[in-house]
Parts: sequence; C-alpha cells; structure tokens
Amino acid sequence: MENGKPSETLRSVPTVKLDAQWVVGFVDGEGCFFVGINPHPEMTSGYQVLPEFTVVQHRRDIQLLYALKTFFGCGVVRRNHGERMAYRVRSLDHLKERIIPFFEKHPLKSKKRIDFIKFRKVLQLMERGAHLKMEGIQKIRVIASTMNTGRERESPAPPETE
Amino acid sequence: MENGKPSETLRSVPTVKLDAQWVVGFVDGEGCFFVGINPHPEMTSGYQVLPEFTVVQHRRDIQLLYALKTFFGCGVVRRNHGERMAYRVRSLDHLKERIIPFFEKHPLKSKKRIDFIKFRKVLQLMERGAHLKMEGIQKIRVIASTMNTGRERESPAPPETE
Repeated sequence: MENGKPSETLRSVPTVKLDAQWVVGFVDGEGCFFVGINPHPEMTSGYQVLPEFTVVQHRRDIQLLYALKTFFGCGVVRRNHGERMAYRVRSLDHLKERIIPFFEKHPLKSKKRIDFIKFRKVLQLMERGAHLKMEGIQKIRVIASTMNTGRERESPAPPETE
Repeated sequence: MENGKPSETLRSVPTVKLDAQWVVGFVDGEGCFFVGINPHPEMTSGYQVLPEFTVVQHRRDIQLLYALKTFFGCGVVRRNHGERMAYRVRSLDHLKERIIPFFEKHPLKSKKRIDFIKFRKVLQLMERGAHLKMEGIQKIRVIASTMNTGRERESPAPPETE
C-alpha cells in the first residue's frame, strides 16, 4: 500500500475539485509517464522495472497534487527535489485500473500521448511477465529509451522503497 | 497588429480543438503572466511597460500553441529559446478583451491565479495611464516584482518589436 506513510506531509491542505479536462490539460503540461529500469540482484532478470506516473509542482501548489490524488483515488504526494513536490503513482494495479483507463477515455492532446501509449505497452508486457526475463527487459529498455524525448526539465526522484 | 507576420512558422499544422477546462489546466501548468518594464527613452516616463501572456512548449507540441491561438482568437506563435516555442499575447486590447475575461470566467486553480490578478491590476493601471508617469511605473514595478515567484523554469524571450 502506498497510503498512510508518515513521510507524507501537509495532509490537512483543503482539496480542490478537478474537472477531467482540466486534469488532461494539466498533465499535458506537467505530467510524466516514466519507466525506470534499475539493477536489482534479487530479481530473476537482474533488473527491476519501475513504471511511474508523476506530476511535479512547486510546493506552493501542493494542494493541486492532493487534488490529483483525490481525483484518481490513488498515489502519494512526496518531496521531489528541493522546493518541488511530486504526485506519484507506482502501484501496478493503480496504474492499470485507474491511470491508464482515465487517459484512454480522455486522451492527452500533446505528444505526451505517445509516451502514454508506450507506457501502457510496458505495463502490458509486465502483465505477461516480460520483465522477469532478460529478453523482456531488453524489449522494455528499447521502449523506455524512446520516451520523454521532448522533456527537458524534471528528472524523476531517485528510486525509493514503498 | 500581431497577426500575419512572415516570421511566424509552420502555419499549416492542423489545429486541435480545445475545451475551456483543458486550457485552464494547461495554463495552470505552462502559462505565464509577465510584466516587463524596460528603459525606453521615447516614453515620457523613461520606461515601457510590456505585459504579456505566454505559454511555452517544446516545438514538438507547436500544434497546441496554434490551437491556443485559435481558441483565444489572438496572439502569435514564435520561437522562444532553442527548441522551445511560445504562444504570446502582447496586444493590450487582446489581453483586456480576450485573455482577462476568459480567466475571470474560468479561474486558474494554481497559485498562478494570484499572478493573473496582479497582471489584471497592472492592465487596469495602464488603462488609467499610470505607466506614463514615474510614480505609476514605480507602482507597477512593485507589483511586477512579486509575480512569478514560484516559477523556476522559463524566462520570457527578450523584448522584440511587434
């Protein structure tokens, strides 16, 4: 479970109500679909694949990140770098059941839509266990390497155990 | 007039249809209300006040900037820095008649709303001729100095004659 961790801050900030199209516009601007591939000696393939959906904001707008958390009914709000906070969904179930269906129903209008499609492809490969074999890791690595190519700003926070 | 300049590029990109809430979400993420104050020997006050509304994007998403231009029915799409393009509205009439009323009707959800309110205040001061006197310039300078404080990324393109 990602919820209820003590490191999550400012829980008492009042929640803003969001409209689906506002969420699409905001994610077109600020969202990121990212696939991390990290060496992990305990995995059969030697690697751990970590897909994550994040939205990073200056902490002055942390209430919007909590609003996204409420809107999607999953994910956590954490510190990213310095003054920047991140809304983040890493749970494979939440990604498959909440994030993917939302952006299928409400397509992104920016080229981030292409990252979303690749991200969904990686999740499908993982569902079939591809990330447990070297061949699958290689396939995922190729997809991940072509993602977020127009992105110049945020790098995701370093991996962290949840 | 801002329209029809030969330096505007890629006019033939097909236009995406935008929803008002999508525009609010996208501007909450990527928009900027900026007030430039530049020395200008030909102005009575010695300064020129240049309010501008901009949305900057990597050029891979230039079609969204043209979609904003169509949506608001004003502004230009120009190169910003390197690979980044900007949708920009500088015409005082367009700011007052199109941009301000839109965000009054569809409020921003981020703290950028505070920048918007300050921006509107500057336009109101300019309407009363405040920018033509040193005292008014000083007042505008104080407001402008408190804007975009949470912004860490884009700096507006250098001033340019339109």
